[in-house]
Amino acid sequence: MFKIPDHQVAGHQASNGMMGPVVDDSGLFFKPLQKDERGSKEVAFYESLASNIDVPDKIRAYFPTFHGTQLIPASDGSGLHPHLVLQDLVSSYKNPSIMDIKIGSRTWYPQASEEYIQRCFKKDRETSSLALGFRLSGLQVHVSKEAGYWKPDRKCFQNSSAEIVKNVLKKFVSSNISADSDAGDLDFDCAFAPSVYGGSNGILAQLLELKSWFEDQKFYHFYSCSVLMVWDKEPNAAAAIKLVDFAHVVDSKGAIDHNFLGGLCSLIKFISEILTDPHACPNNLALIAIRTAMAIALIGEPEY
Amino acid sequence: MFKIPDHQVAGHQASNGMMGPVVDDSGLFFKPLQKDERGSKEVAFYESLASNIDVPDKIRAYFPTFHGTQLIPASDGSGLHPHLVLQDLVSSYKNPSIMDIKIGSRTWYPQASEEYIQRCFKKDRETSSLALGFRLSGLQVHVSKEAGYWKPDRKCFQNSSAEIVKNVLKKFVSSNISADSDAGDLDFDCAFAPSVYGGSNGILAQLLELKSWFEDQKFYHFYSCSVLMVWDKEPNAAAAIKLVDFAHVVDSKGAIDHNFLGGLCSLIKFISEILTDPHACPNNLALIAIRTAMAIALIGEPEY
Repeated sequence: MFKIPDHQVAGHQASNGMMGPVVDDSGLFFKPLQKDERGSKEVAFYESLASNIDVPDKIRAYFPTFHGTQLIPASDGSGLHPHLVLQDLVSSYKNPSIMDIKIGSRTWYPQASEEYIQRCFKKDRETSSLALGFRLSGLQVHVSKEAGYWKPDRKCFQNSSAEIVKNVLKKFVSSNISADSDAGDLDFDCAFAPSVYGGSNGILAQLLELKSWFEDQKFYHFYSCSVLMVWDKEPNAAAAIKLVDFAHVVDSKGAIDHNFLGGLCSLIKFISEILTDPHACPNNLALIAIRTAMAIALIGEPEY
Repeated sequence: MFKIPDHQVAGHQASNGMMGPVVDDSGLFFKPLQKDERGSKEVAFYESLASNIDVPDKIRAYFPTFHGTQLIPASDGSGLHPHLVLQDLVSSYKNPSIMDIKIGSRTWYPQASEEYIQRCFKKDRETSSLALGFRLSGLQVHVSKEAGYWKPDRKCFQNSSAEIVKNVLKKFVSSNISADSDAGDLDFDCAFAPSVYGGSNGILAQLLELKSWFEDQKFYHFYSCSVLMVWDKEPNAAAAIKLVDFAHVVDSKGAIDHNFLGGLCSLIKFISEILTDPHACPNNLALIAIRTAMAIALIGEPEY
């Protein structure tokens, strides 16, 4: 009835007898409550969000649906354990390509313990968080039915330079990829960039909608929270972003979440450059069409 | 010929025999080069900006005009010393109200020395930088010809809560103020908010234009840099913002300046709330008119 998820790319995983999330057949994702205050804080956030009538529905859709908590058998065989019951974000995709991006140059909040702050501070400096405003926490890219997935160890990517991150974001939406190549060694074609990143419902449009909310909202500050990007080559599988991991959400104390917003804007710039920079994937005709349309919108129709 | 500026609100000041900036009668501001690498780094930034043809003119106007460097007598009487020669930003104002706001939740850059990082890190945590994404570095508000200026010690404000910062930003544009009151004790009328913060050329519009550039530019990361806001009750003195202090500008390494951008968005939210929140200065008729116009723009004309 409960099984280990097929497509988890980051976070604690139920394998080798460890406690981790499980899914069922009906599209639910069961995340074990962490035993320290993180578990209760994540529940408190989901309950606050559920009752916050000032969060617009279109923004609420970027969070996993919350179905309360439930005692179910823990994946490590230790007996009943309380779990968050959430929407399984990837159950509707057949071969999902997934990227988990931890947003913010700072993953710690002022009220945390000194020990926790120092640990996060060190990690933020060692990874790309400090330089780029985010770090890649995990990813898988579907290559083909035969080759399966490219699923690099996150240690290979969370300390990446801007150049490497850009290449990973290109590889995420390219067709000329293999499961064993890294992200630095090919001129990726970005064949799926127009449909996945672009368009009025694509990932860039969704990120921009989320950004508008973050420019305004003063309810929550999200630390160590991720944007999950998911898509699939199946014709009816829409590309989507979701926010995940809320064990470190704190009250805003009257200011917007400038830390999350800054990192989000940095990610947006990376993705929008893939769509607009004429030097990125110069042979992709669909991208050239998008760029031409954007240039015309900016400077007006050419006179013939 | 050279004299100590009348209206400096932050930074090293030429008083008590210390070396500090001086001005002349022609509208120039002479800033002594700091003796360590900060001086040469600030010159290098101004030279880079001057030759960077990809910075739009409308954005360049937010920086002080740069006239090279010059050996002039230091204000501390120690003889000739190299100075940056810059536009005097307040020479065209008669009774300027000025606020110096250091932008960014983090004032240190990854390449700095460990000792410098730890010192800034401590200060960012002790002040409002961490919580709000900026801190008030200094300010003066013109009260009246008789009463002069309200010029609080910056120690009173750089550790402020969101509530206090909002009140300071209200007091900055109010007529019912005194020189000795603090910012917490009055219901300020925000009489000048529509003309100073609002309007198509007001401070909010300028901050939004700067924000657009920061969402895009990947030339510079600005650490420990301030936004200076200046205005004057004189009829022909336009409210203006300028960026100042570039001793800690570093290369972007391929990402936008998410740290500066996040703090700038936070400041923008504070100022836009003064213009739009119906609970802020509810008796200010000009503000009510602005809010009504914005509501109509959002939801359409009411039907009578």
